[in-house]
Amino acid sequence: MDERLTRQISFIAEIDKLKGVLRRTRIMDASRFENTAEHSWNIAVFAMLMHEYAEEPRPNLDRVVRMLLIHDIVEIDAGDTFAYDSAGYVDKEEREQAAARRIFGLLPDDQRDEWTELWKEFEAVETKESRYANAMDRLLPLVHNYYTGGASWVKHGIVRSQVVRRVAPVESICPHLWRFAMELLDRAVGKGILKADAVMD
Amino acid sequence: MDERLTRQISFIAEIDKLKGVLRRTRIMDASRFENTAEHSWNIAVFAMLMHEYAEEPRPNLDRVVRMLLIHDIVEIDAGDTFAYDSAGYVDKEEREQAAARRIFGLLPDDQRDEWTELWKEFEAVETKESRYANAMDRLLPLVHNYYTGGASWVKHGIVRSQVVRRVAPVESICPHLWRFAMELLDRAVGKGILKADAVMD
Ligand SMILES: [Ca+2]
Repeated sequence: MDERLTRQISFIAEIDKLKGVLRRTRIMDASRFENTAEHSWNIAVFAMLMHEYAEEPRPNLDRVVRMLLIHDIVEIDAGDTFAYDSAGYVDKEEREQAAARRIFGLLPDDQRDEWTELWKEFEAVETKESRYANAMDRLLPLVHNYYTGGASWVKHGIVRSQVVRRVAPVESICPHLWRFAMELLDRAVGKGILKADAVMD
Repeated sequence: MDERLTRQISFIAEIDKLKGVLRRTRIMDASRFENTAEHSWNIAVFAMLMHEYAEEPRPNLDRVVRMLLIHDIVEIDAGDTFAYDSAGYVDKEEREQAAARRIFGLLPDDQRDEWTELWKEFEAVETKESRYANAMDRLLPLVHNYYTGGASWVKHGIVRSQVVRRVAPVESICPHLWRFAMELLDRAVGKGILKADAVMD
């Protein structure tokens, strides 16, 4: 086996570990936590499904899909940082950059550069592809949480405004989906699976 | 929530079940069986990684990736048919077609048609995209099996020629990867994790 293929296969062996990285979100039958490999599949399909709701000019879906397939590979080293864990966010960037260097560094140099760039584009949230990909990554867990009876909201005592802030990036990219998200949140509060915000007297 | 979005969200809720469909392949740390959602992510990334080995004119990778992301959704109803289970293959096509009608049928009509067509293309193995996608789907489990000490080969008493037949489609699409596969099989036999074929006297 030549050097190039050896590196590519060792990368495939390495990223298999993503199947063992657990997220705070449960799969929809609520039986267990979701892992990051499943999530990566799910979010890529979700982005395919929702593309029509992206504002014109629409993002290039093919680039979005590739970006989402690799966007969480760094979690093999850096772990999943819970969306509402502000302490975890302090050194998130540093941890993830070290992870990207190590893991994408297993690849042949040209692929290392190409895949690292794709990952950095996702992280920077500047291009329309990256903004749409990030919006999907914010929205899907909300849908999941709603369908699993707010499992992760209830457990962590999350209030409505925290979720609203979390999905805020959806508003400008996919306004229709943002209205849908707000509707789900209202229903979730109505059902008692998400706390309403404290009302000032 | 309008009718169209309702259908799309019910599709997303439905395909979440793919996370509960177990395959015969183990994840690479051998700790448990792989599920089909993880596999779908894995195979899409594998196809991105190996594209350079496809014979010219190369398949359109974007179509391949989309195809692979949805190629196994029918397993929600039809289950995973073990590659070496000839009895299971008898009604595989019928079971999978009914599954495709039901599951893709949850989508709005235009998406239902588009996604069903993508799935049918994968199944027909006629276009170069589909031939490459199928080749990857044959090759990755071999790599997995090799790295998990032949877990599924040993358990089911698989012999080398069965695996060779299974990965045969790789030869014409990606000859370099086919030679690599044969090399892995030789090593697997040498290690005693795959049975050599019976030698005729
Ligand atoms: Ca498959």
